[in-house]
Order: sequence, then structure tokens, then C-alpha cells
Amino acid sequence: MNLILLFDEDWVEAGRRVRLEGRRRRHVLEIHRAQVGDELRVGQMNGPVGRGRITRLDDDAVEMEVSLEADPPPPLPLTLVLALPRPPVLRRALIAVTSMGVKQIVLLGAAGVEKSFWQSHALGEEALFEQCVLGLEQGRDTRMPEVRLCKRFKPFVEDEMEALLVGARGFVAQPDLAVDAPRGLTGPLLLAVGPESGWNDYELAALEAAGLERISLGERPLRVETALPALLSRLF
Amino acid sequence: MNLILLFDEDWVEAGRRVRLEGRRRRHVLEIHRAQVGDELRVGQMNGPVGRGRITRLDDDAVEMEVSLEADPPPPLPLTLVLALPRPPVLRRALIAVTSMGVKQIVLLGAAGVEKSFWQSHALGEEALFEQCVLGLEQGRDTRMPEVRLCKRFKPFVEDEMEALLVGARGFVAQPDLAVDAPRGLTGPLLLAVGPESGWNDYELAALEAAGLERISLGERPLRVETALPALLSRLF
Repeated sequence: MNLILLFDEDWVEAGRRVRLEGRRRRHVLEIHRAQVGDELRVGQMNGPVGRGRITRLDDDAVEMEVSLEADPPPPLPLTLVLALPRPPVLRRALIAVTSMGVKQIVLLGAAGVEKSFWQSHALGEEALFEQCVLGLEQGRDTRMPEVRLCKRFKPFVEDEMEALLVGARGFVAQPDLAVDAPRGLTGPLLLAVGPESGWNDYELAALEAAGLERISLGERPLRVETALPALLSRLF
Repeated sequence: MNLILLFDEDWVEAGRRVRLEGRRRRHVLEIHRAQVGDELRVGQMNGPVGRGRITRLDDDAVEMEVSLEADPPPPLPLTLVLALPRPPVLRRALIAVTSMGVKQIVLLGAAGVEKSFWQSHALGEEALFEQCVLGLEQGRDTRMPEVRLCKRFKPFVEDEMEALLVGARGFVAQPDLAVDAPRGLTGPLLLAVGPESGWNDYELAALEAAGLERISLGERPLRVETALPALLSRLF
């Protein structure tokens, strides 16, 4: 937790004082090992970042005087279209890409996505929110990403992707291709990342037909949670 | 498992036929859902890669006729010096960097490394080997990385790092610096990556004095398992 995210219900005195319980209190106590008087980084959900000075810290709560003055780090101008990974990988992937500043995430169905993944608790609104909060806290960010679930590949790629590509350059990542991912782009970009087994031929053709360029990180297939930071860091 | 790694004790007929039990048999059966006659990618530990055609598959074992003809993917010319992360992160980090082709890994002590981490089972010879095998299987590689444990920061940095830097360019990664990581290098490189809290001032100065250049991926601190693929993919 490199930044403590503050929510509307935390304010004791709007814009000046907060009271935190539960996970954040424990974290301040046990990980930061903070004491009254210490200052910690804080940020208001979808708002500015700043410092919180601890004024009380006990078994019930931590209270802070807060001053918020700076913008959170700039978002990554990228829409991520990700074939839904299995639940534990999804959790880590969401934290990773949120910490890197991705704000638009589409979780997509594909032939390589097991149907049971769509039943997972990891896709519940609360669970998605929780992983994104962890990612924001990691990356000292406050702007909550939007996560959409699009179970059906074809309607999304044929009917919805065009709008997402207006003014943007689109890529589809696949291992084993002889097309090196470009470097140092400024965006906006759309990046489609397949299941661990890769997109199948039909999907790859459909994504290309929709306007995406094939790219690769080389002949080594990577786990989704490894491929994502590698791709984002290469493209930008 | 994008490649099934074969060990000396697997050969029923040297260089031609193998018999696999346990984890690899289950994987072939349950994940690949393979049948007799199917071909799978295989590779000999520290040797060539090729195909294995399944000749038998039952409750005891899978047997394959193997032909090995190609080189594994080229290694990443990089020595990774990594402040020892907590055990679950270490496991994921080892798989990630091994899948990306890193062959020299030094796990280093630092002020931000909790002493208890050195007692973890994850540092046992067998556990390290196991994670590296998973990384090789992921990246379709066969060349086992060398993992060294250097608990004491100072002797390593002052006495041993010089030899590792002969002919190589060295970097130390730290969040929040105004020095963007360079792109598209060809190596050989040495990269030092700190604990999640970053290197402290003394460590940063010592690493610089040893000849490393400071680099950063920007103001967002990333989890170790996210920072590593991002850094490797940026540098190369």
C-alpha cells in the first residue's frame, strides 16, 4: 500500500479529517508501523493525492489530518482487451495493470477461455473493485479503472471494437510471431491479449479484420501476468 | 507447460524413448488432454528441443518417442541481482524471469529484506529448482538458470559485482527517479532490482559506486513480479 485510498465515507470532516478502520488501520499499524505524528501518502478515490498526518491510532481506528494538493499520476492511454484468465491469474493481472495505470479493461470470451471462469467470484463487482483498489494503492493512483465483461467474442469484436479504435492504434499480441512489438509509442492504444494458449486462428483473423496489428514479444510464451507488464512497458 | 522438460532419468532408450510419471503424466492427460499418437513439444534439460510422440498413456505413465533437433531459445544476456522478495513473490518472480530467459540470478540481502525470508523453504535447493523448471516449461526453454544466494549486501556489492560487470552495462532500478530506463539494448547487462520499498540511500549509493546507472520505470511503484517483466522487456 504505497498510498492509502480514501473514500467518501471515510471523512469525519470533509476534505480535512478521515477515520479508517479494518484493513487500512491494520496496514498502517503493522506494515507502515506508523505512529501518531507520522505522515503517509493518501489519495481521494478518483481525486487528488497528498499527505495524511496521523492524529490518532488505536485498536479501533486510525485518524488523519489530510491535505490533498497534487494530481495522481497520468493514466496509461490504453484500452486492454484481455481474454478472461483463470481467477487467480485474473486477480494478479488486474492488480498489475491497474498499478501501471490502465483505465479501460475489457474481459473477453475466447475459445481458450474455460466456461467455468465466468462463474468465478473473482468476477463479482466487489471482487473486481477490490483488486483495482489494490492496484491503485500499489501505483499511488486514485482513478478507478472501468472493467467490462464481454462474454461473447464475436459481437464485441465485430460491433463494439470499432468505437474503441477511433483515434487509437490497435494491437493483438500473440507469441511466436515474427513481428516485434513496437517501442515508445504515445497512444492512445488498444491492446488485445489472448488466453495462455494464444488466440486461435479464427480469433486472430477477426481481430486483424477489426483493424488490429499483430505483435509479439518473441518465441517464448509468457504467463498472462508476465506478458501484460512486458507488453505495456514495451509499447509505451 | 508449453514444453515438457526431460531429465536423464526419464530415458528408457537414450535419446529415443522416455517414460514420465507424476506431475508430467497428469499434465499431459489433464491439461493437454493428449492421446496416443499426439505430438507434444519436449526438450532435454540443458539440451536441445523437439517433439515427443505419445506411444503409451495410462494410469502409471506416459511414454513418448522423442526426436530432438533444435536449439532452445537464446538466453537473455542479463545477470539479475534481486533483493530477496517474500517467498510467494519469489516463486512467481523466478518463474517469470526464467520464462523470459534469464540465466544468472543473484538473490541479495538488503535493508528492506526481512530476515525471516532467508529461512523460507522457497530458498531450498529443490524449491528453487522446481520454480526454474516451471519457468523453463513456460518459456519453452531447457537451459537451467543459476540461482545464487548472497545474504550480505556489502561484500557482494563491493567484492563480487565488479567481476559480473566485466564487459557488461549495469543498472539499478528504483521507482520515482527522473531517469527513464533505456530501450532496445543488446546486452550483456546486469540489473539490480530492490525490495518493494526500494533500495535505501546507502544501498543506492553503493550500487552506483560499483558502476551501476540508476534507472526507473516512472513514479508508480510496481510489485516485484510486475516490475521485473516490465524492466526486462523495456531494456531489451
